[in-house]
Amino acid sequence: MKKDDCIFCKLANGIIPTNSLYEDETVNVIFDAGPATKGHVLIIPKEHFDDIYSLDDKTAEHIFKVAVKIANAVNRALKPDGLNVVQNNGEAAGQTVFHFHTHIIPRYKNDTVDIGWIPGKVSDEELKSIKEKIAEEL
Amino acid sequence: MKKDDCIFCKLANGIIPTNSLYEDETVNVIFDAGPATKGHVLIIPKEHFDDIYSLDDKTAEHIFKVAVKIANAVNRALKPDGLNVVQNNGEAAGQTVFHFHTHIIPRYKNDTVDIGWIPGKVSDEELKSIKEKIAEEL
Repeated sequence: MKKDDCIFCKLANGIIPTNSLYEDETVNVIFDAGPATKGHVLIIPKEHFDDIYSLDDKTAEHIFKVAVKIANAVNRALKPDGLNVVQNNGEAAGQTVFHFHTHIIPRYKNDTVDIGWIPGKVSDEELKSIKEKIAEEL
Repeated sequence: MKKDDCIFCKLANGIIPTNSLYEDETVNVIFDAGPATKGHVLIIPKEHFDDIYSLDDKTAEHIFKVAVKIANAVNRALKPDGLNVVQNNGEAAGQTVFHFHTHIIPRYKNDTVDIGWIPGKVSDEELKSIKEKIAEEL
């Protein structure tokens, strides 16, 4: 299904023209309009999914297969110093367009990308409780 | 294949005991030892792959299917404000253990996680050149 008011539905399905790197029946891989670095692309499913939670297995599987393919091509072509695959869900996680997408971000020394956190500690007791809660939902 | 000196080979295959949330034939999902946030887990293939470049299609597909499953369980169990899927390749991209792994990071307001960049600009001419280079490697 497509959503009429969704910019990524329009971009992924060619309703709004864009710079596509790769396209197949399920996804369109386009260049980010405000790239973090040289070669920053987005893998966007043609069907509308708000975020990772609603993604079906078949589409999910295909997306990561394409991610590996694109990562390899970008790596061979641009020879970056590294590469991140980033997928954000919810405003608090940095999602700005609410149509599922996966960033492929080639990394170069001294680029502006920051991906990090302060490693925390968790007690055995707390971990046990967290694990039980998640396991119940698996 | 397993690598004798690889800590993630040992953790994923139960040679070193760890807190596993989910396990199947292909992957082990374990709690990060220095969690960014409550519920931060790693999806680790049991076979050794240094990074995304060497991942085979079947393993890649399975990993993201598991990512969707785990993301949903974490979301229902912990009700975070958001969730990131992050996969780093190369030191410049923040990879610290050189056995492929995917982070599932639940996000909470005021957590210590920072994932961002300064959006850049690229001329039509430069984009055309980048696109041609990558397309040659696809």
